[in-house]
Amino acid sequence: MKLYDGGKAPNPRRVNLFLAEKGVQVERIPVDMGRLEHKGEELTKLNPLQTLPVLELDDGSALTETIAICRYIEETHPENPLMGSTAKEKALIEMWQRRVELQLFYAVAHAFRHLHPAMKTWEVPQVADWGEANKDKALKACEFLNTELADREFIAGDSFSIADITLLVALDFCRLAKIKVPENLSNLNRLHQALKERPASIACAL
Amino acid sequence: MKLYDGGKAPNPRRVNLFLAEKGVQVERIPVDMGRLEHKGEELTKLNPLQTLPVLELDDGSALTETIAICRYIEETHPENPLMGSTAKEKALIEMWQRRVELQLFYAVAHAFRHLHPAMKTWEVPQVADWGEANKDKALKACEFLNTELADREFIAGDSFSIADITLLVALDFCRLAKIKVPENLSNLNRLHQALKERPASIACAL
Repeated sequence: MKLYDGGKAPNPRRVNLFLAEKGVQVERIPVDMGRLEHKGEELTKLNPLQTLPVLELDDGSALTETIAICRYIEETHPENPLMGSTAKEKALIEMWQRRVELQLFYAVAHAFRHLHPAMKTWEVPQVADWGEANKDKALKACEFLNTELADREFIAGDSFSIADITLLVALDFCRLAKIKVPENLSNLNRLHQALKERPASIACAL
Repeated sequence: MKLYDGGKAPNPRRVNLFLAEKGVQVERIPVDMGRLEHKGEELTKLNPLQTLPVLELDDGSALTETIAICRYIEETHPENPLMGSTAKEKALIEMWQRRVELQLFYAVAHAFRHLHPAMKTWEVPQVADWGEANKDKALKACEFLNTELADREFIAGDSFSIADITLLVALDFCRLAKIKVPENLSNLNRLHQALKERPASIACAL
């Protein structure tokens, strides 16, 4: 399989972190999103939505959507599970992945895309009021996650999971979106620091 | 297990359709969202995010997030799989579930929540320009899905899957959001009609 890789952009970085944590090697085709290479002819044929990353399987079929790509890697490389082993673990990790993604990751992404001048041609129309509303949503999500983290090490429980990957990428993304995670959210900041220090995170650092 | 059920609202309906398609019976506790019962004390303890549905497991733990609840049902009732059997099927169905959800379902939801007067106290702040932008996003998503459906029966391939459940609920939701799916999108309209006629859909009709 071949990964069309957008490098440090949030969704490509989630897949790269997942691969590094699993210790899975794949062939990579670097794609420069800054030069809009993901909108080129070859990639548009693989993914009409023109998003990255794209995983091309050996039979030529194209897999897109970050979490679906991670699912394929998890299913074909079950060692060191990051999406749970039992039915209950799988469901709880999926719940937390989605809570972090829907409440925090997308809020940060909307704040960035609707307010940053560099996103003017990427997000049409930019709606500044919606960007500002999402700064508030992101801060509320941080408070919720901080409260949940009072009695456990990782966001989905006592083990590292794909939900922590989404959390790390979302929290790192806050800087670009000009969102400051309050210092008094000590449980969340503690986990953010611990996630940044993992070997896989250092290998995929911004 | 016990399902705290919001009935015909889009996310509760997705879980109800999934259960009906699988033929799985669960104990249901009806929750009247119109009376804001999902924001009551008992449910807030189970789900601090105050969303429905919530599946309470026999050990007392609470599972939220539509797709995570479906994952738990799928893993504990593997007959008649709606989320795929092989690694590739699981990944492609997850890809399509997410494409339909992110491109269409959420666009329709944002159009409804940001433009409908009844949502004024549910979506704070309502941003009308964002609601309007999402009407366009929903129509673009319909065009994309219509093109993809030219050569296959269901959205993720030749078999019915959870991605079709999200598609049915999103398309039905268009009426409330005052979005008219163009009549010339014949592949999409053909599938919408076929999905509405399934026995499970008739049992969970709006």
